Amino acid sequence: MRKITSRSNETIKFIKSLQMRKNRNKTGKFYIEGVKQVGESFSSNYPLDLIVYSPDLLIADYGREIIERAKAKDIELIEVTEDVFRSFSNKNGPHGLAAVGNQRYQDINESQINGLWIALESVQDPGNLGSILRSLDGAGGKGVILIGQSTDPFHPTAVRASMGAVFYLPIMITTRKEFIIKIRKDNIFCVGTSCDTSNSYRDQPYFDDMVLIMGSEQKGISLALEKTCDALVTIPMAGKVDSLNLANAASIVLFEIYAKRKNQ
Amino acid sequence: MRKITSRSNETIKFIKSLQMRKNRNKTGKFYIEGVKQVGESFSSNYPLDLIVYSPDLLIADYGREIIERAKAKDIELIEVTEDVFRSFSNKNGPHGLAAVGNQRYQDINESQINGLWIALESVQDPGNLGSILRSLDGAGGKGVILIGQSTDPFHPTAVRASMGAVFYLPIMITTRKEFIIKIRKDNIFCVGTSCDTSNSYRDQPYFDDMVLIMGSEQKGISLALEKTCDALVTIPMAGKVDSLNLANAASIVLFEIYAKRKNQ
Repeated sequence: MRKITSRSNETIKFIKSLQMRKNRNKTGKFYIEGVKQVGESFSSNYPLDLIVYSPDLLIADYGREIIERAKAKDIELIEVTEDVFRSFSNKNGPHGLAAVGNQRYQDINESQINGLWIALESVQDPGNLGSILRSLDGAGGKGVILIGQSTDPFHPTAVRASMGAVFYLPIMITTRKEFIIKIRKDNIFCVGTSCDTSNSYRDQPYFDDMVLIMGSEQKGISLALEKTCDALVTIPMAGKVDSLNLANAASIVLFEIYAKRKNQ
Repeated sequence: MRKITSRSNETIKFIKSLQMRKNRNKTGKFYIEGVKQVGESFSSNYPLDLIVYSPDLLIADYGREIIERAKAKDIELIEVTEDVFRSFSNKNGPHGLAAVGNQRYQDINESQINGLWIALESVQDPGNLGSILRSLDGAGGKGVILIGQSTDPFHPTAVRASMGAVFYLPIMITTRKEFIIKIRKDNIFCVGTSCDTSNSYRDQPYFDDMVLIMGSEQKGISLALEKTCDALVTIPMAGKVDSLNLANAASIVLFEIYAKRKNQ
């Protein structure tokens, strides 16, 4: 086990560099912080490169247990001072446990889409993406497909908001064209949310194998994707607001699908 | 109309100071940014103190229209340079329109609770609070009651996330004790979300006049509030995550209530 006491150590600089997307893209690594998040990655056997902790900050028993279990595995364990930990922490009151993981993506062309999936076109907010993964897992969903220019699912905010789901659920990144080819080839049932329909998400029949397609916060789904859908649904609304937050809307539809399937 | 070209002008310093809760509390004012947000506050006749804009940044026609309409009203209009606007803006690409509003609260003891309300105990995240207001409005809800130590509904993030709902919906702040006295006195039907029940939110009958009570992101609702509820509901889940994001969970239950009422 290494001990690091200097903020300017190369490994510490590397950990800090993972806050930026370009560095995550270049290295294929990402930053995980907190007892809950590191614990979830660890329990899911997610590929981790290293675990870094500060004994002075790490008070939680569960956190100390993770350290003990990590010692038995092939994961580098680095002890740092409180000062060093605070230099890369994203939290106001850090709990002294973080990790570096390897970004794991699945190839859409080599995968089967079984069960409930969600496809998000050009989603922009990492907090939304993370909490959609969390809701998807809660609704029995199997994976997420990111279409086009999206936010990064390995952004620290997305990882945190997913509450572990980013470690459990397969993530695919693809282009709109490749996505359309795949769903046509495999004949996958697609339901898209849209303002261009009066068909309520409550009245729509759903199937065991299906993809729910939702668009970006600003623009919704593209016309090309709308045309690919087998059905379009909308969430009827009262009030003055003209739309819902993307993650809230996704959760409403996902849990409608989940409830309908349970009662089949 | 005043023109301000200096970042160190007293009014500009005042606008900047509203980023901090203690200054919002002290003055009863808050900061609103963006064409959409300022437009919504304006259309709702929300009490505004001033509108500030930068002609170089304000390209949107709708934004310019607001300026023209503001000239006819008793709202101070301040023109600033692009540099000054950027000095207080919260946005990466600011659109050159902001305002200062007067925080508006309703007194729980002088109000009737009719229709669907949500009560949130110790909610912590301003983004969650804002997007819950947005979903509440979309689900035909009438107002929000904040119980205990909560985040500030006039935090810039909450205002933005509410997409205008913070201007339409009455907001009450109260203590747990005062809340319990009120709902007992007025005999208001309360449904709380809880992990201590197996009663699904899908199986629960809801009433026209009711309060949905939800707890903080970390702790859920307190035992004292649970005991006050006429019914407890839970959102059954699959998967590995053990809970949902608060705003997502609130949206799921609110839209279940909305759908049930529509089909009555």
